[in-house]
Amino acid sequence: MINKKMADLGNQPSVIREIFEYSLRRKAEIGAENVYDFSLGNPSIPAPKMVDDTIKELVESGDSVALHGYTSAQGAMPVREQIAANINARFGFPASAKNIYITCGAAASLTSTLKAVVNDGDEVILLAPYFPEYNVFCANAGAKTVVVLGKGDNFSLDFDALDKAINKNTSAIIVNSPNNPTGAIIPESDIIKLASLLNKKSQEFGRAIYIIADEPYRELTYGDDVPYIPTFYNNTVVCYSYSKSLSLPGERIGYVFVSPNCDAAADLFAAVCGAARSMGYVCAPSLMQRVIAKCDGETSDVSLYNKNRELLYNSLTEIGYKAVKPQGAFYLFMKALEDDANAFCEKAKKHELLLVPADSFGAKGYVRISYCVAYDTIKNSIPAFKALFEEYKDR
Amino acid sequence: MINKKMADLGNQPSVIREIFEYSLRRKAEIGAENVYDFSLGNPSIPAPKMVDDTIKELVESGDSVALHGYTSAQGAMPVREQIAANINARFGFPASAKNIYITCGAAASLTSTLKAVVNDGDEVILLAPYFPEYNVFCANAGAKTVVVLGKGDNFSLDFDALDKAINKNTSAIIVNSPNNPTGAIIPESDIIKLASLLNKKSQEFGRAIYIIADEPYRELTYGDDVPYIPTFYNNTVVCYSYSKSLSLPGERIGYVFVSPNCDAAADLFAAVCGAARSMGYVCAPSLMQRVIAKCDGETSDVSLYNKNRELLYNSLTEIGYKAVKPQGAFYLFMKALEDDANAFCEKAKKHELLLVPADSFGAKGYVRISYCVAYDTIKNSIPAFKALFEEYKDR
Repeated sequence: MINKKMADLGNQPSVIREIFEYSLRRKAEIGAENVYDFSLGNPSIPAPKMVDDTIKELVESGDSVALHGYTSAQGAMPVREQIAANINARFGFPASAKNIYITCGAAASLTSTLKAVVNDGDEVILLAPYFPEYNVFCANAGAKTVVVLGKGDNFSLDFDALDKAINKNTSAIIVNSPNNPTGAIIPESDIIKLASLLNKKSQEFGRAIYIIADEPYRELTYGDDVPYIPTFYNNTVVCYSYSKSLSLPGERIGYVFVSPNCDAAADLFAAVCGAARSMGYVCAPSLMQRVIAKCDGETSDVSLYNKNRELLYNSLTEIGYKAVKPQGAFYLFMKALEDDANAFCEKAKKHELLLVPADSFGAKGYVRISYCVAYDTIKNSIPAFKALFEEYKDR
Repeated sequence: MINKKMADLGNQPSVIREIFEYSLRRKAEIGAENVYDFSLGNPSIPAPKMVDDTIKELVESGDSVALHGYTSAQGAMPVREQIAANINARFGFPASAKNIYITCGAAASLTSTLKAVVNDGDEVILLAPYFPEYNVFCANAGAKTVVVLGKGDNFSLDFDALDKAINKNTSAIIVNSPNNPTGAIIPESDIIKLASLLNKKSQEFGRAIYIIADEPYRELTYGDDVPYIPTFYNNTVVCYSYSKSLSLPGERIGYVFVSPNCDAAADLFAAVCGAARSMGYVCAPSLMQRVIAKCDGETSDVSLYNKNRELLYNSLTEIGYKAVKPQGAFYLFMKALEDDANAFCEKAKKHELLLVPADSFGAKGYVRISYCVAYDTIKNSIPAFKALFEEYKDR
């Protein structure tokens, strides 16, 4: 009588959670400083000081009823206006409050958008490697997922494969740049090619094909630009979250921006509202709405992640590991030293290195290394990475 | 290509929202003090001081990464333990942390629970009058709703009608006590009869029939006890929210408590986890999790609502209106002075009285009057209620 699909999903072992629990046990056994846990994507840099200052200011302002009260379902109008103004200012793109739906985080942005654009029999394209939870969110919307693996060392867009994958049932493609797990940023030239392909296919099949731009890592970059996709493709919905930019992953605050250039943009926005409402999402956490209104544009101190990135990438490639230098986010995607990434991660564990095998990300033979950790964790782990490499050399 | 159902839902005119917007316009025209808006269910009493004090303490504690970081999907373990301990202490009922899933508010509690217990073809029973959004949440879970109207002035449980409504497809019944919109509390004797009926039917049809106890108003009572349903019926899932008890409706924080006495309770709990995950709910807002851990058990100053209730109920019945005195929540359910509640509300508007016609609550010929307003709003509105009544006397 229980819904079995939901029970299975709730009982599904999660690779990352299992590593996390192993990590806790192991740290208790041999001391936290001796375990090199690279499994979690939890920001390790505190929120900008302005965030906590703003929270204090708001609660001291005295109007508790207004502060903690319901806002409209789409969010408080001044907050939506602020977000739209920032999109205008940063990207020179015409956003207005009526295109902005404030959400309870990145996952809510995605599930609401997917439910808004997916009809019975529709397909959604995932570009591998990808964040595994996309599968769960697509299933919730009733979409079949079609995986298109990237090309080459950097998993760049494979336009031939994409051309074949898009068909009359294709409703949307999720684009995640900077990417989890590779840290790659899709260059402008590829966004332009993708837009052109999607326009051609939309015309061919007589339907809108949406880009769902999942951008929680937009602010976490190390010199490269992240093209703003609505500028290049009309049918774009941006799913944003402040989890990483403001180091607030637990607070669940983000937004959906339906580009005004989308076909029937007002109806699409209404569908996002309806989808969110149907799942019980109305009015994102109200205190945090006010916080982001004040702190939108602020970012945590990304230079710390950059220091980690340089040390980790340089050390690993010097040892002989193969990886492409990440341009954004806080993950390094490394080739395992054998085809079976799970076996490789088990061997890494013997050296107290906790890595995530990337099979569930849709790319076999790789591991994800989260470098949102303390600098010293990376520094101290290098001998272990070296020993692991030596072990394979001897085989 | 847009999901039409979702767009329709997003575009659906909401009676309450339309009144709200009319109210804003009208207040601008004739002055806020001359408009008597009884449409909204937004708590008018500030959160207990402890709430804002706790927020300040938490942000001053300095560990921003932990405070705003991800908790586990089900919520932070110490918070779940605290909630379970409070259930034990208050109701003498054996709850443990592993039965508690912290949610992003009442709506999330309901959508997650419904998705966990509903299978294809299943039906969910709603006891009218009921909160209209139940229809939306049931549709999201794929359930057909079956409405059973209450009996008599107080809309008490109609056991004959219930007996007929329950069939082999019945998956759950939503019980909302204290009730929105009537303010009625279901007495212990009726809960016992309901439990007995459901046990009989469960046996007859060979399936669990769940009570989903939607309890956001549990703490808002004026002398009467609210029976704790898990004590009387094993297959109970409690959906709780701190929106009303702590006056935090915008913060979206609550929990699901799967009674350990449920059949296959661990699987059911897993299904709630899976359902929440599929919709993108993981880790309820982290700062607020810590706030409720400290403030669970506190309540806003309900005596202010009680003052409002006494004044409103006494004044209206003295004029000649018919209503049952609410025992809880902050709504008064009044018989309209003609069969068409919408027409009645239009006439009330001429007297600057903004009431909600209750057709969408599943009971025709009634209006909902929210008395979570300023005392003076009620006091000043009485002559208008009187004039409205006189108008009908002359017809």
